[in-house]
Amino acid sequence: MSWIDDPAFRADQPFGPQTLPYGVVDGDRDGDGGRVVAVRVGDHALPLRSVADALGARLADLVSADSLDPLLAAGRPAWTELRERLTEIVTSDRAPRGARLASLDAVTPRLPFTVADYVDFYSSRHHAENVGRIFRPDGAPLLPNWTHLPVGYHGRAGTVVVSGTDVVRPSGQSRAPGAELPSFGPSRRLDIEAEVGFVCGGPVRSRVPVSDVAEHVFGVALVNDWSARDIQAWEYQPLGPFLGKSFLTSVGAWITPLAALAEARVPVVAPEHPLVDYLVEREPWGLDLALEVRWNDTVVSRPPFAAMSWSCAQQLAHMTVNGATVRPGDLFASGTVSGADKQQRGCFLELTWGGREPVRLGSPDGTAGAVERTFLEDGDTVVITATAPGPDGSVVGLSEVAGTVRAAVS
Amino acid sequence: MSWIDDPAFRADQPFGPQTLPYGVVDGDRDGDGGRVVAVRVGDHALPLRSVADALGARLADLVSADSLDPLLAAGRPAWTELRERLTEIVTSDRAPRGARLASLDAVTPRLPFTVADYVDFYSSRHHAENVGRIFRPDGAPLLPNWTHLPVGYHGRAGTVVVSGTDVVRPSGQSRAPGAELPSFGPSRRLDIEAEVGFVCGGPVRSRVPVSDVAEHVFGVALVNDWSARDIQAWEYQPLGPFLGKSFLTSVGAWITPLAALAEARVPVVAPEHPLVDYLVEREPWGLDLALEVRWNDTVVSRPPFAAMSWSCAQQLAHMTVNGATVRPGDLFASGTVSGADKQQRGCFLELTWGGREPVRLGSPDGTAGAVERTFLEDGDTVVITATAPGPDGSVVGLSEVAGTVRAAVS
Repeated sequence: MSWIDDPAFRADQPFGPQTLPYGVVDGDRDGDGGRVVAVRVGDHALPLRSVADALGARLADLVSADSLDPLLAAGRPAWTELRERLTEIVTSDRAPRGARLASLDAVTPRLPFTVADYVDFYSSRHHAENVGRIFRPDGAPLLPNWTHLPVGYHGRAGTVVVSGTDVVRPSGQSRAPGAELPSFGPSRRLDIEAEVGFVCGGPVRSRVPVSDVAEHVFGVALVNDWSARDIQAWEYQPLGPFLGKSFLTSVGAWITPLAALAEARVPVVAPEHPLVDYLVEREPWGLDLALEVRWNDTVVSRPPFAAMSWSCAQQLAHMTVNGATVRPGDLFASGTVSGADKQQRGCFLELTWGGREPVRLGSPDGTAGAVERTFLEDGDTVVITATAPGPDGSVVGLSEVAGTVRAAVS
Repeated sequence: MSWIDDPAFRADQPFGPQTLPYGVVDGDRDGDGGRVVAVRVGDHALPLRSVADALGARLADLVSADSLDPLLAAGRPAWTELRERLTEIVTSDRAPRGARLASLDAVTPRLPFTVADYVDFYSSRHHAENVGRIFRPDGAPLLPNWTHLPVGYHGRAGTVVVSGTDVVRPSGQSRAPGAELPSFGPSRRLDIEAEVGFVCGGPVRSRVPVSDVAEHVFGVALVNDWSARDIQAWEYQPLGPFLGKSFLTSVGAWITPLAALAEARVPVVAPEHPLVDYLVEREPWGLDLALEVRWNDTVVSRPPFAAMSWSCAQQLAHMTVNGATVRPGDLFASGTVSGADKQQRGCFLELTWGGREPVRLGSPDGTAGAVERTFLEDGDTVVITATAPGPDGSVVGLSEVAGTVRAAVS
C-alpha cells in the first residue's frame, strides 16, 4: 500500500505506479512556488526536488532544473535508473522525508522541455489515403514513395506549446474553390490532427539503427498538430505545409516514459514489398495505443495507433540515415492517427470528408447530437487522450492534450 | 587613419570599416584562448572583450558570452548603439587600452549563434521556374501560389553548421529513372544552393509588419543549402524536402549587420498583380548583392540577389502572419538565388540542367576547362562570396560560405 493517498494512483488506473510520466509545473506552493520537475502520480504531482535525498545526489541533480532538458541529455542508463528509483519511492508504504504532493488542480503545467527540432511524419496509411483522395481527387491516393519510407517534414519548434494553451485562430491566404485570386482572413477550416509524439534525448548522433531507438527516445506524449486546411491547401505545393501548421502545435504536459509502454509494443502494418535494409525492424516498435478525440463533450473518434504503418524506430532511423543528427529535445510525431473506419479518423478533414459530412455534437457518439460541425468554431475545445496495455493487465495512460479555440486577432 | 594596421581594412575593401560583421572564434590566444565574440576588421578578428572598457559595461555585457545569443535577444536599439560605438573604436587613430587583434588565420570560426527555427524560402522566380521545368516537365513551371506569397518550408536547425565544415556525402533512398523500386546508397546528385540568410533577434513576436523588419533582422549571412537531388526527388511529395536537405546547411561565419546594407536596398521584382495587403512593402527591402560561386577554382556562376521576387521583410511578415512567433536565433534563407542567364544560376541542378549540360572546371569561367562536372564529387570545394554597394562608393562584403565534400560513411 503506497504512502500516496490518491484513488487515481492505483494499478487499475491510467496514472498508477505503472505509468509515472514526467512533467514540469509552476506553483509548487509547499515548496518555494517555483517551476519544478515532477512525476505524475494519479491526480497529483510529486515534485522531484522534494524526494532528492531518496534519489541520491546524481539523479537529484538531473531533475533539479526547471525543465527536463538535463534529464533528456543524460540518456537511457540514467532514465532507467531514475524510473527504478522512483518506482521504489512511490510504491513504498512510507513517504520519503520531505516528500510532498501537489494536486494537479493546484499547479500549472509548463512545456516540459526545450524543443530542438520538430519533425512531423505521415505514417497512417488510412490518413494519407484519405487526404490524398480529398486534396488530389484526380491522382492516386497514395504516392509511390509512401510505402517505402516514412514520409515526413520539419515543423516549427518555436510554436510547440503545452496542453491547455489557447489556440488563436490563424489568419492567412487561401483561395476559395473556383476563385482565381487568393484572399486573406481568419481560417475557416481549422482542424486538429491527433498524433503521438516522441521526445528524444541521449547523445547527439546520426545514423541511429532501428535497434537503438530506446537509446534516443525518452518518452511519448500526445500531440495535436492544429491545421488550417484552407491555408494549407493554397500554400503547400511544392514545398509542403508551412503556415497551415506553424501557428501552434500542442503536446501533452506529461511525458510517458518509453519503458512504461513495453507491454504495448506490436508490429506495425508492414508493406506488401520488402523494405530497404535500414528500415527493417527485428523487434516490433509499433505501439497499441487507443486514442480518443473529444470535441466539446462528444467523443467523435477513437483512432487506433496499432494501425500505423511506420514505427518510431523506423522514423528515427530514417530521419538520421542521411547523416542528420538527433539531439536532446528533438520531438517527432507520428502524423495523424487514423484507422480504417470512419469513427477512427484522427482529423476533421477526414471525419467530415472535406466538410461534406458534418458530425453532430452533443450526443455521446457524434451521430445524433443537436449541434452540427465540420471544422472548429471559436470556443470549441478538443481533448485527446490515450491508453495502452500495461503490465499485469494494468492500463498505462498518456496525458491529455487539450486546447480551446479563440477568435482570430483582427 | 585607423590604429588597425591591415590593408584589407580600408573603405575600398569588402571588410573595411563600413562592414564590421560579427562572429565567434576559438583560439583568441592573446586572451585566454577561449571562445569569444568578435568583429571582423579586414583579415583580422577583434575580440570584443578586449575593448570592453571602450564599449561600456552594458554593451560589453551583451558581447561577453561565447555566442551572439545575448546580443541577438537585445534588439535593434542595442544593435545600433553597438555598431556606432564599434565604428568609433575601429576608426580611431588610437587603439583602446587592451585592444588586440587576431589574424583570421590564427583563429577558428564557430557557428556564432544558436539556431532556433530554420526556414528556407524559394523566392527566385528563375530558380523556381527552372526547377519546375526539370522536376515536373509535364506541369506548369510555376505553381499558382508562387506569385502571391513567398513559398517556404522549415528546415533542420540542428544541422546548420559554420562555413568550413566538411560536407559528408549523404546516403539515402532514391529511385533511378525508369526503376520501379528505390535503392539505397550515397547520393549521386549532390548539389549546392547559393542563398542569402537572415539572422533574427529582438522580442519574440508574431504578425511582424513589413515595415518592422529591421526590428527583428539582426544581420545577413551567406547560406549554402546543400541538397541531394536524387534523395529529394524521391521523397519530396507531398510534404516537401526532408532528408534531401537536412544532412547539412552551411552559413557564413561572420554576420553582416543589416545596417551595413542600407545602400544596397532595392525594390524586389514585383508580380504583375496586386499583393495581399500584409505583403505590400512601402520601403524597399530587396538587396543588391552580387553573389559569386566558385567550384574548386572556377567561378561557375554570379547570381544576382537583386533579381529576387520576395524581400526579407515580406518573408518575415508572411512567416508570422498566422500567429507564429519569430524568436532570437531564428534563421531564414532566401532560397536559391538565380538570375535570368545561365551563368547566374545558383545551383548545379539548374546550371547543368538536371545533369545534361556539364560545366567545365579548370578555366576561369567554367566553359573551357579540362574537368567536366555535373554534380559534386568527393573532394570538391564550393565557396560562395558576395558583395554589395556600401556608403560613398565603398563595397560591403558578405563573408564566404565554404565547404568541401567528403566520401559517404559506409
